[in-house]
Amino acid sequence: MEKPAALDELIQALRCLPGVGPKSAQRMAYHLLQRDQQGAGRLARGLTDALERIRHCARCNTFTESEVCSLCASPRRDASLLCVVESPGDLLMMEQTQSYAGLYFVLLGRLSPLDGVGPREIHLDRLVRRACDDVVKEVILATNFTVEGEATAHYIGELLSAKGLKVTRIARGLPVGGELEHVDSGTLAQAVLERRPA
Amino acid sequence: MEKPAALDELIQALRCLPGVGPKSAQRMAYHLLQRDQQGAGRLARGLTDALERIRHCARCNTFTESEVCSLCASPRRDASLLCVVESPGDLLMMEQTQSYAGLYFVLLGRLSPLDGVGPREIHLDRLVRRACDDVVKEVILATNFTVEGEATAHYIGELLSAKGLKVTRIARGLPVGGELEHVDSGTLAQAVLERRPA
Repeated sequence: MEKPAALDELIQALRCLPGVGPKSAQRMAYHLLQRDQQGAGRLARGLTDALERIRHCARCNTFTESEVCSLCASPRRDASLLCVVESPGDLLMMEQTQSYAGLYFVLLGRLSPLDGVGPREIHLDRLVRRACDDVVKEVILATNFTVEGEATAHYIGELLSAKGLKVTRIARGLPVGGELEHVDSGTLAQAVLERRPA
Repeated sequence: MEKPAALDELIQALRCLPGVGPKSAQRMAYHLLQRDQQGAGRLARGLTDALERIRHCARCNTFTESEVCSLCASPRRDASLLCVVESPGDLLMMEQTQSYAGLYFVLLGRLSPLDGVGPREIHLDRLVRRACDDVVKEVILATNFTVEGEATAHYIGELLSAKGLKVTRIARGLPVGGELEHVDSGTLAQAVLERRPA
C-alpha cells in the first residue's frame, strides 16, 4: 500500500527524535493523526516557536530567549565560581542537582580534532576572557568523562592554570548507592586511584 | 533555574507523543535544539503539512490526500472482500502482512456505549450500504480482540448476516486483549488465513 506522501514525510521527520526508529515513528504518526491532532498542532507550533525564539546567552551560551540568560542575570548566584560544561543539556543536569550556586560557561561542543573541532569552535578565547574577569576565583571543569571530554578538560585546565586561576575537575568514582559488584572495572580502578581521606 | 518559556512549552508539547514522559521529552527538546535544528524544522513542517493535507477516504475512511485512497481506487484489489478494521493504523498492519488483497472499511472507532460511541459514531449505516453493493461477497471482521472490539465485531456480524452476507472473523491467533497495532505480522497473517464464520 502507498501511504499518503504527507504521512510518509511525517514518519520520516519523526525519526529526527533521539531513540525513535522506523516502527516508533510510524506508531507516533498514526497516533497523532488518529487520536491527537490538537497535540500535533501544538507540537508543530512549539517547534517553530522554539526555533525562532531560542538563542544562546551572550555570556554563557546556554539557551535563552533574552540577550543574557536568567542564570547569568541573577544576583543570587555566586559569581566567583564558574562551571564549564559541554552543552545546555549538561547545564540543566547540574542545576537539577540543586547543589551548585555558581555560574556557567557552555562550550557547545568538545575538542575533537578529527571532526575539525578545535579551541576556536568551542569558544575558548571567550572562555578565557570570561574566566579572567577578576571576579571568578575557581573554574570547575564538568565536561563528560569520555575521551574527548577528558581531553577538553585537560586542555582548558592547562590554559586557565597558566593565567593563575584555580581549576578543579568534578570527581570520578562510584555512583551514589553504587555497588562494587555492578560497576565497571575502569570506574572502580579510577575510584581507588583517586581515593581521599575517609 | 527557569528554562526559557519556548523551551518549556516545547518539552510539554513533545509529551503528546505516545510513550514519551517528562524525562524523554526534555532529552528530545535539548537534542533538537543542540544538534538537529534542521530536523526540528522538518518535523514542524511535516506535522503542519500532514494536518492540512491528510483527510479520510470517502469510501473506506482511511488516511489519504485525495477524495478516494489509493487502495479503494486500485483495480488490482479483490472488491468481493471487505475487511472491517478500527483505525487507519490497523489497516496499515493488515497491509504489511501482504496476505490480504481485498478492500477495507475503517470504523474510526469501536462501539463503546459508556463513552457515548454507538453505531452512528462508527458509521455503521455507511458500512451497511458499502457492504450491500452487490459486489462484496464476504465481510471480514478485523476489529481488535479487546472487549469493545469483540462487541463491535459481534454487533456488525449480526447486522450484516441479517442482510444475507457472508461474515467472518479473523482467527483468535492473537492473544486475548491484544491489539493489531502491537502484534507481529506473521501472527496477524495466520489470523487472516484462519478466519471463521462469525
